[in-house]
Amino acid sequence: MKSLGALAVPGANAGKEPEVEQLLKPGPGLPSARQPGIRQPGDPHGHMSVDRLEQQLAFVRELDRLKTVLRRTSLIDRSRRENTAEHSWHLTAMALALAEYAPSGADLPHVVEMLVVHDMVEIDAGDTFAFDVSANLDKGARETAAAQRLFGLLPPDVGDRLRACWEEFEANETPSARFANALDRLQGLIVNDAPGDGGTWKLHGVSRGQVLERMAPIETGAPGLWPVVVEAIERAVEAGHIA
Amino acid sequence: MKSLGALAVPGANAGKEPEVEQLLKPGPGLPSARQPGIRQPGDPHGHMSVDRLEQQLAFVRELDRLKTVLRRTSLIDRSRRENTAEHSWHLTAMALALAEYAPSGADLPHVVEMLVVHDMVEIDAGDTFAFDVSANLDKGARETAAAQRLFGLLPPDVGDRLRACWEEFEANETPSARFANALDRLQGLIVNDAPGDGGTWKLHGVSRGQVLERMAPIETGAPGLWPVVVEAIERAVEAGHIA
Repeated sequence: MKSLGALAVPGANAGKEPEVEQLLKPGPGLPSARQPGIRQPGDPHGHMSVDRLEQQLAFVRELDRLKTVLRRTSLIDRSRRENTAEHSWHLTAMALALAEYAPSGADLPHVVEMLVVHDMVEIDAGDTFAFDVSANLDKGARETAAAQRLFGLLPPDVGDRLRACWEEFEANETPSARFANALDRLQGLIVNDAPGDGGTWKLHGVSRGQVLERMAPIETGAPGLWPVVVEAIERAVEAGHIA
Repeated sequence: MKSLGALAVPGANAGKEPEVEQLLKPGPGLPSARQPGIRQPGDPHGHMSVDRLEQQLAFVRELDRLKTVLRRTSLIDRSRRENTAEHSWHLTAMALALAEYAPSGADLPHVVEMLVVHDMVEIDAGDTFAFDVSANLDKGARETAAAQRLFGLLPPDVGDRLRACWEEFEANETPSARFANALDRLQGLIVNDAPGDGGTWKLHGVSRGQVLERMAPIETGAPGLWPVVVEAIERAVEAGHIA
């Protein structure tokens, strides 16, 4: 049995056929027999190339690092800062719960796909705080390099599809991308607004004008949700969190 | 202007119409004029009911709590335990990267939708360790009560759709659900296997038979990925992490 190199502990599989065969025997609770050979390229049952699968698994393991990229925003309970992986999940859930606010022409499954992918580049490029002007100057270059490396881990057909999702999100031109971007902005607003403490707006002295500019994509990408923005900003001004 | 009660800081909006009108004037960086009135129920531009939106936003805020539900598994870098929100994101990304291993009849967008939803009930029910026999005895009852409350926060049409996703995932009968379940099991295997330390398998003295039983849904839900399971278990046995 050929080793799946990318997953292998070096040397662990060398000449270990007998042990593999032991494993392949049905054990306790194992409900059905093996299907020998499904891992061979071109096999009609598995449709799998070992090299191709190795690339895909390397990508999946690499994605784990997005859980360690911290955003400026905190959880609503303010126990800690939010990471980009859980933020991305929150956005996909918002897309399902708020689907009816998508603009005409948006395709919800594609919105969700874009939201899953949209911040993967932060594995290399890090999170860039929306209101940090200097950090945003080279954000594009950093994220493009990250996309090149990260999506390049995948077989080209898969990598190209995910990269196209990221590029569409960034361009913010299609109805699906505009809804995805609106949700991204709205999520930041909700976690800043919900506890009533002003969140990162207050912490970093962000102005009402800056927040309105940051939230502007909601007005076109999910116009039915714009009043949520206006009311949250109103509350933050009233409470003295932003001026 | 009527307050969006669910988002409101108590009293913050009372009689504040003039300030709202100030906010509605284009400010610095605000690229376009407001669209007054889109927040009214039945409005042709916003398609929005205030009560309905309040329910949806309450649900979105409630979802933030899934970020604080810890699983037994740790990140691949072993810096901390994984939470259920970021785990859910990882699964959706795996569905995109490994889509070609879905069984015949699976619908990828629906797989992703199910993966977004599948662990939401853990907000109330907590994560139940796969190998904890006693905790799994009342898992179903705890999660059903959680689904009732959580999806009940939403307008019925939306809540019913998400609940149906959760139920389909749990039943594990449709091709889409079988692929989603396979990915859920595979993700646990990958984070246990990747660093070569045996992860929770070693930590909790899990046997080879238990791991094989836990992973069995992969064999039917993503047969092309089954060799990944066999090889990872082989490595763990070789390394002495499981017996």
